[in-house]
Amino acid sequence: MTPYGERLARAALTRVVEPGDAHAGRWLRQFGPEDLLRLLQDPSAAADPFPGTGEKRVEGWRRRAATAEPARDLDAVDRQGGRFIVPGDVEWPTQLDDLGDTRPVGLWARGPADLRTWALRSVAVVGARACTPYGAHMATTLASGLAEQGWVVVSGAAFGIDGAAHRGALAARGATVAVLACGVDVPYPRGHAGLIGRVAEQGLVIGELPPGSHPTPTRFILRNRVIAALTRGTVVVEAEYRSGSLVTARAAARLGRHTMGVPGAVTSGLSAGVHELLRGEATLVTEAAEVIELVGDIGQLAPARRGPVLPRDLLAPDTARVLEAMPAGRPTLVREIADRSGATPDDTLVRLYELHSLGFVERQGDDWRLTNTPTDGANARRGGT
Amino acid sequence: MTPYGERLARAALTRVVEPGDAHAGRWLRQFGPEDLLRLLQDPSAAADPFPGTGEKRVEGWRRRAATAEPARDLDAVDRQGGRFIVPGDVEWPTQLDDLGDTRPVGLWARGPADLRTWALRSVAVVGARACTPYGAHMATTLASGLAEQGWVVVSGAAFGIDGAAHRGALAARGATVAVLACGVDVPYPRGHAGLIGRVAEQGLVIGELPPGSHPTPTRFILRNRVIAALTRGTVVVEAEYRSGSLVTARAAARLGRHTMGVPGAVTSGLSAGVHELLRGEATLVTEAAEVIELVGDIGQLAPARRGPVLPRDLLAPDTARVLEAMPAGRPTLVREIADRSGATPDDTLVRLYELHSLGFVERQGDDWRLTNTPTDGANARRGGT
Repeated sequence: MTPYGERLARAALTRVVEPGDAHAGRWLRQFGPEDLLRLLQDPSAAADPFPGTGEKRVEGWRRRAATAEPARDLDAVDRQGGRFIVPGDVEWPTQLDDLGDTRPVGLWARGPADLRTWALRSVAVVGARACTPYGAHMATTLASGLAEQGWVVVSGAAFGIDGAAHRGALAARGATVAVLACGVDVPYPRGHAGLIGRVAEQGLVIGELPPGSHPTPTRFILRNRVIAALTRGTVVVEAEYRSGSLVTARAAARLGRHTMGVPGAVTSGLSAGVHELLRGEATLVTEAAEVIELVGDIGQLAPARRGPVLPRDLLAPDTARVLEAMPAGRPTLVREIADRSGATPDDTLVRLYELHSLGFVERQGDDWRLTNTPTDGANARRGGT
Repeated sequence: MTPYGERLARAALTRVVEPGDAHAGRWLRQFGPEDLLRLLQDPSAAADPFPGTGEKRVEGWRRRAATAEPARDLDAVDRQGGRFIVPGDVEWPTQLDDLGDTRPVGLWARGPADLRTWALRSVAVVGARACTPYGAHMATTLASGLAEQGWVVVSGAAFGIDGAAHRGALAARGATVAVLACGVDVPYPRGHAGLIGRVAEQGLVIGELPPGSHPTPTRFILRNRVIAALTRGTVVVEAEYRSGSLVTARAAARLGRHTMGVPGAVTSGLSAGVHELLRGEATLVTEAAEVIELVGDIGQLAPARRGPVLPRDLLAPDTARVLEAMPAGRPTLVREIADRSGATPDDTLVRLYELHSLGFVERQGDDWRLTNTPTDGANARRGGT
């Protein structure tokens, strides 16, 4: 667990520096969060402690640092059942470290799931706001398919493709994470307040900005790098030529993540951006199985699964309890596992996705079962019931 | 020019062996056409001159060799204004030699164009018979675009995508070649008799089978290898999963030709085959410029073109006359060039495409001009008129 002083300083810094500011990231790396904050809050500090960073930018940092109230922000999020996750925390998704100096200072989060384990098996599904019915259909279908195979669907909660992706995952009783370009207590867009609420109840809503912050065009664009870095790959469903979703996809490619695109009619302007990607670095995908084939472990689709990646006694107590409730040798519905573990079905599902990421269990359709159950053929899954 | 005896033997062999028969190709390579035909026609020949080739197959060859009347076939095609092109002829497209033992024995042809020079700058546009309006639209648009840039469009004259491709090229006053799976005097499919007639008048209709031959399923499939080998690349517009057009595309890839596919909606079964290709060896293309970028010479799209590849005095007289009729320094319409050369507009167009393949002229929209005309800016093309 990261010490409280550092956590408090990082919480303050999310109010001081804009997401993805590489200058700030460099000084954060050099001074550490507490000293950086002190330097910004102390008017008597060295004349220019940040050589090479423009005066105007530093002035803005100082102004905001003077009024930051991180303890109040942490309290506010805490009261909403949320939390602030920082590097060094068990829940910190270390793949974000690939972002270097643009790594988030910390992530504000709401929702019952464990970000780190969920992110291990996650795929981003993103695309145009003003999508076509075809695009919405493809996003929903892909997200449902991914969810049914135990993959976590990450998106940006925007109208259009993003919303369809979250809904597709939820409809399949799957796991989904919304990465916002505003405070996690700010339901943006307004029309998705209900959807974002459901994601926060059953999955995770995360973001770099402190409570009450509003989105800006720059924040939308920089949010995309978090989606790209967090996931194993990004699928673009519909995107106009030179649109924001392509930024996510290209960021994913630069980070060594898989970039994928769903083709469409050449006559649709909303597929032009995807086709542009597919002529470059991206792989054409038409269904969830093809996505999983690409982002999954080798052998993901083969009958013999890999075993757990973590010893049982390192599991969180709630998670361990769900694992203990899994009957050996037969596929089981969430409801039965919930009954046996004493947790709610929603909570059970959250833990099952964690256990899936860690290799203990797997999902097939609505059934869950232990991965190391011996199988004796393709139909063994149904054989035990 | 290939000697008449060999030409006659090859004409006979097109009636004796099926297209793409690698056994026959091997013996043809070993014995040469005249000796192979003699061996098949002489009942007193060595007990088994074709070890390893099944008796039944050889029996079929012998039976058909006994009744072949190549002189009559050559006469028949000659009367229709056609010809028989064999390896060694100036008009033989040497890229077909890449087919090894499945190289055509010879090609029956109708039409005013020179096969060899046209094939130098040709692209195949193929796809499903039962295409959608979207597919037909894309095939027409691509073929028109290719034709407008001086590329020859090769296809199989079938219903659906093939027909749309030929029509698109013709509509742009472009060059097109139909490769049939039957005799070049057999208009198949019947509904395309008019279209095939127009292609024969303005371009080329070619095939491996002698006059009067009818298509069979095998002949359709084997015809595809000729389309693949003849062209610089193959574009598949719409194709169902595991369909014949994919055979052409894969054959093209094996021969080191470019394979390309036009994407469509994932929800359309007629795009499933194309998407399968695009997930493998093929490149996604959405417009003619992208096709040309791939199959064209380096610098095809750059302002400075390459010069001619053949000295002027090696041109056929009709072609040389059209070249001489080209005014220097300004783009010109076909009609004017025809007036100056004394040839018909159709004939002039045929020669212009030859000259384009050989690097003497280039087409932009409806204008033609000499390639080595100095340009002084993007608008110079219009500047001289």
